[in-house]
Amino acid sequence: MTLAAVFPPMATPFDGGEVDTTAIARNVREWVRAGVGGIVALGSNGEAPFLDETESDRVVAAVRDALPRSRLLIAGSGRESTRAAIAASTRAASLGADAVLVRTPSYYKGRMTRDAFLRHYSAVADASPVPVLLYNYPAVTGVNLTPDTVGRLSEHPNIVGIKETGSDGAQFAAYVDAVSRSFAVIAGSAPTFYSSLCLGATGGILAVACVVPELCVSLLDDFLAGRHREARELQRQLTPLARLVTTEFGVPGLKAAMQLAGYSAGDPRAPLAPASADAIQQIRAELEKLQAGNRQPGTGNVVVL
Amino acid sequence: MTLAAVFPPMATPFDGGEVDTTAIARNVREWVRAGVGGIVALGSNGEAPFLDETESDRVVAAVRDALPRSRLLIAGSGRESTRAAIAASTRAASLGADAVLVRTPSYYKGRMTRDAFLRHYSAVADASPVPVLLYNYPAVTGVNLTPDTVGRLSEHPNIVGIKETGSDGAQFAAYVDAVSRSFAVIAGSAPTFYSSLCLGATGGILAVACVVPELCVSLLDDFLAGRHREARELQRQLTPLARLVTTEFGVPGLKAAMQLAGYSAGDPRAPLAPASADAIQQIRAELEKLQAGNRQPGTGNVVVL
Amino acid sequence: MTLAAVFPPMATPFDGGEVDTTAIARNVREWVRAGVGGIVALGSNGEAPFLDETESDRVVAAVRDALPRSRLLIAGSGRESTRAAIAASTRAASLGADAVLVRTPSYYKGRMTRDAFLRHYSAVADASPVPVLLYNYPAVTGVNLTPDTVGRLSEHPNIVGIKETGSDGAQFAAYVDAVSRSFAVIAGSAPTFYSSLCLGATGGILAVACVVPELCVSLLDDFLAGRHREARELQRQLTPLARLVTTEFGVPGLKAAMQLAGYSAGDPRAPLAPASADAIQQIRAELEKLQAGNRQPGTGNVVVL
Amino acid sequence: MTLAAVFPPMATPFDGGEVDTTAIARNVREWVRAGVGGIVALGSNGEAPFLDETESDRVVAAVRDALPRSRLLIAGSGRESTRAAIAASTRAASLGADAVLVRTPSYYKGRMTRDAFLRHYSAVADASPVPVLLYNYPAVTGVNLTPDTVGRLSEHPNIVGIKETGSDGAQFAAYVDAVSRSFAVIAGSAPTFYSSLCLGATGGILAVACVVPELCVSLLDDFLAGRHREARELQRQLTPLARLVTTEFGVPGLKAAMQLAGYSAGDPRAPLAPASADAIQQIRAELEKLQAGNRQPGTGNVVVL
Repeated sequence: MTLAAVFPPMATPFDGGEVDTTAIARNVREWVRAGVGGIVALGSNGEAPFLDETESDRVVAAVRDALPRSRLLIAGSGRESTRAAIAASTRAASLGADAVLVRTPSYYKGRMTRDAFLRHYSAVADASPVPVLLYNYPAVTGVNLTPDTVGRLSEHPNIVGIKETGSDGAQFAAYVDAVSRSFAVIAGSAPTFYSSLCLGATGGILAVACVVPELCVSLLDDFLAGRHREARELQRQLTPLARLVTTEFGVPGLKAAMQLAGYSAGDPRAPLAPASADAIQQIRAELEKLQAGNRQPGTGNVVVL
Repeated sequence: MTLAAVFPPMATPFDGGEVDTTAIARNVREWVRAGVGGIVALGSNGEAPFLDETESDRVVAAVRDALPRSRLLIAGSGRESTRAAIAASTRAASLGADAVLVRTPSYYKGRMTRDAFLRHYSAVADASPVPVLLYNYPAVTGVNLTPDTVGRLSEHPNIVGIKETGSDGAQFAAYVDAVSRSFAVIAGSAPTFYSSLCLGATGGILAVACVVPELCVSLLDDFLAGRHREARELQRQLTPLARLVTTEFGVPGLKAAMQLAGYSAGDPRAPLAPASADAIQQIRAELEKLQAGNRQPGTGNVVVL
Repeated sequence: MTLAAVFPPMATPFDGGEVDTTAIARNVREWVRAGVGGIVALGSNGEAPFLDETESDRVVAAVRDALPRSRLLIAGSGRESTRAAIAASTRAASLGADAVLVRTPSYYKGRMTRDAFLRHYSAVADASPVPVLLYNYPAVTGVNLTPDTVGRLSEHPNIVGIKETGSDGAQFAAYVDAVSRSFAVIAGSAPTFYSSLCLGATGGILAVACVVPELCVSLLDDFLAGRHREARELQRQLTPLARLVTTEFGVPGLKAAMQLAGYSAGDPRAPLAPASADAIQQIRAELEKLQAGNRQPGTGNVVVL
Repeated sequence: MTLAAVFPPMATPFDGGEVDTTAIARNVREWVRAGVGGIVALGSNGEAPFLDETESDRVVAAVRDALPRSRLLIAGSGRESTRAAIAASTRAASLGADAVLVRTPSYYKGRMTRDAFLRHYSAVADASPVPVLLYNYPAVTGVNLTPDTVGRLSEHPNIVGIKETGSDGAQFAAYVDAVSRSFAVIAGSAPTFYSSLCLGATGGILAVACVVPELCVSLLDDFLAGRHREARELQRQLTPLARLVTTEFGVPGLKAAMQLAGYSAGDPRAPLAPASADAIQQIRAELEKLQAGNRQPGTGNVVVL
């Protein structure tokens, strides 16, 4: 099992407003077939902030059921308080998670100093039965893990990597430069997947991989094989869709794109609203472009929608 | 019962890491003696993001027990999802809350449009057994309720006011100008309490009122009696302490100040750390200044520490 | 001569793209008739960043020619380098300016520390033949003079005040609290004119005073006479127009409003574009509302458009 | 002549506070010997905002004198008004500049719309005798040229490229994707030089190239030869010094580093202060590390300090 792979941060499918474990199983099997290294459950794209603890547990259990042991199950377990993060990490591990992804606490922004982060993550990593991945997402949290802080935390034996969700190449490089080879720095933003790989990214946790996992896997394969030109070109093709399912239309856009690509997603929970007809139209157009652009025989990059 | 008053947004006292209901009762009785119009439980200063649902309920119940029916109990019930906010509001009402204070959802920032806020708050207000207060706190949430949105929401019969936590006088005035006289616009930031009153604030929900409620009540009394000069002067005196227990040292500073002033607060939960010795020293100095400055016989503004 | 007054930060009229000194004279005489305490030339609203040094001098000279000696001429002389700011201040003084308004240097943001500001302003104040007003405008410059820095600078005998262009009531109050009574803290943002006066503002330098100076003067008069309710009500009426000629449509909106109100402004310089037809329509509507709302006989607040 | 090269954005040396043309000539000859593709004069690192028009002309002329015709002279000519930018561009061309680098106007932020930028740059490009490079530097200007705007401007026959000073890999990639092959997208931030090259950067305009031009040229050479590993490694080595002479200590740091590396820079103009002893110490340490790290015989990357 390795983090040198693509992981879809799965959207949580709802049916009639409730978690749809059947749909989860179906999606997971499809993603596995597409070659992903595992699944991230209960991330931002999974509407984790909308799920209560019982629902969260059902999601983790459902993914584990459908996911071969050979693939990694990474479960989001970030909470504002250290004790709640420890409790969530422990429960996720007991339900079969191979690792936990722990978002920075951020409500008390002014107090989230380097020391606060060191205390928080060290305590969680000390207590967690499974390895911890840091999760930095400044655009949403308003706080930032500095390369220096990440360097320090990377020395903890139970902290094994970081997901960086942002497009700042200087910070991404600084993370890579601050840690040892065995610590994974994972790209969390699809439009910079290729450039992050150049800088030393181990793999990617990318919303767009919920929709076109094959293309993300191809991009990684191209890069690992030294095919820079092909990887850059795939990046160019992927970026517009990647934007539509994140910055442009968010989780509603991601869910709509999944539906169009044959996955089951359902509607998001309020106050999120389902993607508008116009949003769906733009997403469909990009999906079709990707499909057409990859139909050349022999490329192996065929997207089946 | 009226919102034209001062309300301490109470810190939640912990003892051995657990909610200390005895301390809550003691504090509440003290605040009532100081002339507050009621209590805000489960706000940002109450470490609400650190409490689970069961703990939250215990806090509300404990406050209600100690608070005379003649004083308002306002309970924080904001959650990221609409359904969770409704559930929390309903539970708070059943435990004796007179109103609920509903912070803007903010995790999915890019999607938190005017429409999303209208849908969210309308649904919560439709379902809540008690009146709803909006709660805007851009510095923490990264989202903002515009005056236009507040104007629209103020037309809902079960939305009765807004707590604005920020110091932008233009936005505060715009709120007042956008709503009818019967809708309360409440100052949520102590350094602008006086200027907010000039602009039409109904009252104040002020962290520093957990420490020196008498002075906050005096400021409001001075203002209501048309004593602008005295109110402005009290503002000048209060501001340094108000800063120390919010922007400067946050909840740890507030808890330390409460302890120094004779209230029970205990330590905050991790990842927050207790106030440093230096912070405590600064807080003590400001408290002593306030005490000294108000010792003139007959002013009625004596702070007993 | 006093800073306890309203000052229009005049737009610079152009004719055929060149500075129109005839129009300047006409406008100045009109503003004086409306009761302003003087004129601010070469501020942000005067398109100062678009004028070369020769043009700047012509503007100052033209204002002085038309402005009675009994009214203050305040000339903008802020520059990025200390030596250029000194040179501009000296030239403005020689052309009849009574004081200079020196915007914070801001290009090298990361270096604009407290010490840099202390050095810059002290050197300018040492060299300037006329008193210096600090000018803080964070929304445009991206840097901020802290109350502590302003407190220090207020001790310089040739620094006599500050124009604060922003709506943060906490900072405005902190300025007032940091300086002595004889140091002027001037409101630079019309939507918070009234609340700034409550906090201790000496007067106002307000874009909207280029359009409806009488109303701004009335507001100040009401406040100084203790008529808080009337001042607050005038504020409410003024705010919409004040927004249209600043945040909403900027200098192009201000110039359009001046034209509609009978002043001469001409078009702004490129890359600014003249106000659109829609902008002009909105501005006209607000002007008419103001005019109608003040037509009651005997109020003294008649706007003549 | 090609933009596929490294260009130092030269610091302007002062002697006794005045432009030192002798030092300029000496520096330029040294940089040319190090293999740079040309020189950028009057950029942010050249303290352009501190120079008057006459001084600016002297700088351009002095560089041209010392720079072989085979190397490009790119002169900064951005101004807030369109007419001033045209005048500066025309003068720079007449003094021998091969191209002009035109920073976004930014003072009237709210008005700097897509249309305003299209009008401004089209007018400058129409009038300029030499090709125009766009210059985007959001951290300083507070405005941003979107990829869409750059795509449109790239169609103008006299606009030949853009310098992007920032580390957002998503925007850099989007620029490259929005323009044709013949339009140069130039890295303006050294810590992301390598990753920008991966994304399609043509070359680099890098402050640190004023100090260690050989290393920057080596990095570009490695990349162009497909030696990704070596380029990434050089990037890792360069980044700490690159930070010290930009974000950390700014122009004062750059000037100190140049002095330490044998170039002539002198002190910056006030309100900038010379680098502190501590800053110089840090810079010296990084320079020595770079020197040591490249002393292996045969690498060709020897830094002579």
